[in-house]
Amino acid sequence: MAARQLVVDVHTHLYLPRYASILRQRNTVPKIVTRVRDDGCKEERLVILKDEPSGGRPIGASYTERNEKLKFMKKHGIDISIVSTANPWLDFLQPKEAHDLAVKLNDDLEEYCSTSPTVRGTSMKQLYGFGLLPIVPHVGIDSLLETVKQISASSHLKGLIMGTRGIGKGLDDEELDPLWAAISEAGLTVFLHPHYGIPQEAWGEKDNGHVLPLALGFPMETTIATTRLILSGVFDRFPSLRLLLAHSGGALPQLSSRLASCIVHDPIVASRLKHDARFYLGKLYLDAVSYGSEELGFVSDVLARSNRYETGSNNVDQASRSIGSGRMLFGTDHPFFPPLASSEKWKSVVENLDAIENVQGWSEVDKIGVKGGNAISLFNL
Amino acid sequence: MAARQLVVDVHTHLYLPRYASILRQRNTVPKIVTRVRDDGCKEERLVILKDEPSGGRPIGASYTERNEKLKFMKKHGIDISIVSTANPWLDFLQPKEAHDLAVKLNDDLEEYCSTSPTVRGTSMKQLYGFGLLPIVPHVGIDSLLETVKQISASSHLKGLIMGTRGIGKGLDDEELDPLWAAISEAGLTVFLHPHYGIPQEAWGEKDNGHVLPLALGFPMETTIATTRLILSGVFDRFPSLRLLLAHSGGALPQLSSRLASCIVHDPIVASRLKHDARFYLGKLYLDAVSYGSEELGFVSDVLARSNRYETGSNNVDQASRSIGSGRMLFGTDHPFFPPLASSEKWKSVVENLDAIENVQGWSEVDKIGVKGGNAISLFNL
Repeated sequence: MAARQLVVDVHTHLYLPRYASILRQRNTVPKIVTRVRDDGCKEERLVILKDEPSGGRPIGASYTERNEKLKFMKKHGIDISIVSTANPWLDFLQPKEAHDLAVKLNDDLEEYCSTSPTVRGTSMKQLYGFGLLPIVPHVGIDSLLETVKQISASSHLKGLIMGTRGIGKGLDDEELDPLWAAISEAGLTVFLHPHYGIPQEAWGEKDNGHVLPLALGFPMETTIATTRLILSGVFDRFPSLRLLLAHSGGALPQLSSRLASCIVHDPIVASRLKHDARFYLGKLYLDAVSYGSEELGFVSDVLARSNRYETGSNNVDQASRSIGSGRMLFGTDHPFFPPLASSEKWKSVVENLDAIENVQGWSEVDKIGVKGGNAISLFNL
Repeated sequence: MAARQLVVDVHTHLYLPRYASILRQRNTVPKIVTRVRDDGCKEERLVILKDEPSGGRPIGASYTERNEKLKFMKKHGIDISIVSTANPWLDFLQPKEAHDLAVKLNDDLEEYCSTSPTVRGTSMKQLYGFGLLPIVPHVGIDSLLETVKQISASSHLKGLIMGTRGIGKGLDDEELDPLWAAISEAGLTVFLHPHYGIPQEAWGEKDNGHVLPLALGFPMETTIATTRLILSGVFDRFPSLRLLLAHSGGALPQLSSRLASCIVHDPIVASRLKHDARFYLGKLYLDAVSYGSEELGFVSDVLARSNRYETGSNNVDQASRSIGSGRMLFGTDHPFFPPLASSEKWKSVVENLDAIENVQGWSEVDKIGVKGGNAISLFNL
C-alpha cells in the first residue's frame, strides 16, 4: 500500500494565466498592479481585499506558473496537489462573464492537471483540481448546474472551490438546493473558502497589517457560513454532501457545543433540525491547516464525538480521537504565507506537517491518512 | 482543606434594582418594556441588542432579586457566586451619568454581597462581585481611576466587568494604559465580556432567533478584543494584568496558532511583541463556560503549552493538559439560558458541570480546582 503513504496537499492555490491577465486589466479590486520599488525594480502586486493595507502583496511566478508549483511540491515532499483558484474567484463578475470564464478556466485547469507528471510508480497525476462555478448574484441556476456537469466530466477535477456569498444571500439560500443536489449526486467535494472576512470596523484603528483579517476574519467567515448552512437544514436535506472546510473549520469546532446549547434554548430553531448541531460537524471534512498539534487533536475530537449527538443515539462513551483523523486532510495554503527569507523550506508548510506529527493520540496510520491517504480515498485518485 | 471543594460560579449576572429601574424608564435600547401576552398576563421583556429578534426576552425576578440568585445557587450546589452586572453595563450613558451610576451601583453591589449569608463552616460570604467602571466615550481617565480605587476599597468586590469598546476605540487604545496600570497595581481581575457581537449583516436574512449572535457573535467579539489587546502589547507592558475571558476565550484558543503564524509573516507586527502570540494566552484566565468537555480539554492544552512559546524557551515537550486547568473557572451565565420547562435543574448549568467532570486528562484535583478552588485562590476569598 505504498500509495497510502503519499503526501497530498488539498489546500493550495493558483491564478491561472487567463485569470491573472484579467486581474492585470482591472482598475478596481481585485487587481494586479505594477509598481516601481524603491530600488528601481518593477514588481507586480496583488490587491484582493477592499482597503487592503500596504498596497497588496507581491505576486510572482508562484501564483501562476505550474513549474513553480511542482518545484514547491518537490521541495516539501508533496506528491500530489489538489489545486484551486485563489479567492475572490469569479465573485466580481456579471453572470454571463462569470459563466463563460468559469467554463474556460475549468478547461484550463483540467489541462493543467491532466498534462502534469505522474507520481513515480503510480498512474496518479501530481496535480488535480477544484473547479469554479459562476456563483454570483443573479446567475441562473441552470448556469450553475451546467458548470457542475462540466466539472464532473473533467476527470482531473475532483470538486469545486466556493466562497460564502452564494448568489447574493449566502449559502443558506434555499434557491441553492438544486445546486447542492447536483453536487451531491455527482460526488464532487465542495471546498469552502473565505474571502470577505467580517466587516472591517471590527479591527479598530491600529495598523496591524493583514494579521486581524487573515488570522481571525477568514476563519470567522467560514465558521459563520457553515453554521448558517447547518441551521438551514442543508445537511438534513443532502446528507451525502461533501463539504471540505478551509483552515480546519475556523472557529466552528470550538464554538460547536455553545452553538448546540443556543439552539436547544431556541425551540423554533431546534425544531427545524433533525440532530444536535454537533452531529453535523462529523459530516464535514476539514483541512489540517491550523498550524498547531493541539488544534488538530481537538478538531479530531470534535469530529470523533459526532455520533454521540445523532438523535436517538445511546452512545455516551468518549470517542477515540483517532476516528476523527479520517476526515482531516493536509494542506499548505501555498502560495500564500511565503517565507520571509529564501530559506530552504516554507515555515507555514513545516509547521503544518509538524503539527500532524505531534498530535497526541493519533497513530502512525492516522498521520499517514491525514498527510495523504484520506485525500486519496476522498477524491478517489 | 474543605474550602477547596467548594463550587464557585464566576460568570453569573444580575441587574441591581437601581439599574433595572433605569432600564424601565428608557424608550431606546437597552430597555425593559411591559407587554400583554396572548393569555392576558402582563410580562416584562428585556431588550438589550439593537434589532433584537422576538422583541427581547422575558425578564423576571431571577435578574434582579438576591433571593432568586441564592435559590438558584442552592438548587445547583453552588456555594459562592462572583456576580456581575449583565451587559450592556453603562455603555449607553454619558460620562457624568456613567460615573455617578457606577459609584452608586458599586456601593449597591458591595452591600448586596457583604450582607449575604456565609458559606457554612467558613467565614466566606456566598456572594462577591465584579464592580463597574464608567468606561464610555469621552470619559476622563481620572473618573476611571477613581472608580478603580472605589472597587479596590470595597472588600467584597474582587474585580470589575468590562465590555470591549473601551472609551470608544476599543481596548487596544493606548489612552487606557493608566487604567491597566491601576488595575494591575490593585490586583483586581478584569472580567472581559461581550455585548455587541459582530455587525449584523454577517447573519444573513434567515430568522435564526438569537442563535447566531449569541453562539458565534459573542465569542467572536471577545476573541477580537483580546487579540487586539495582545497585538497592542498590553501584556508586555502590564505582565501582571489579570484578565478573565467569558465563554472560555471564545474562538481565541482555536485560532491562536494561526494568529501566531500570521504575526510571524508580518515582520512589523511581529517586531512589536516580545513573545509568540501563544505565550500570552497562558497569561489569561478563562471561564469554563463552553458546554463541552472536549472544548475544555483543548482550552486547557492551549493554556498549558504557553510556556513553550516564551521567547528564549528551549522547552519543546508537550505540556500536560493538567497544568492549564489552574487558570480555568466554572461559570453558569445565570440568569441567561433558563430551562425551557420548569425542570429541577438548568440544562446549561448541568452541561457545564458535566463538561468539567468528563475532561480526559484532568485529575480529581484539577476538577475541584476548576469548579471552585481556582476561583478561591484567584480572588483570595
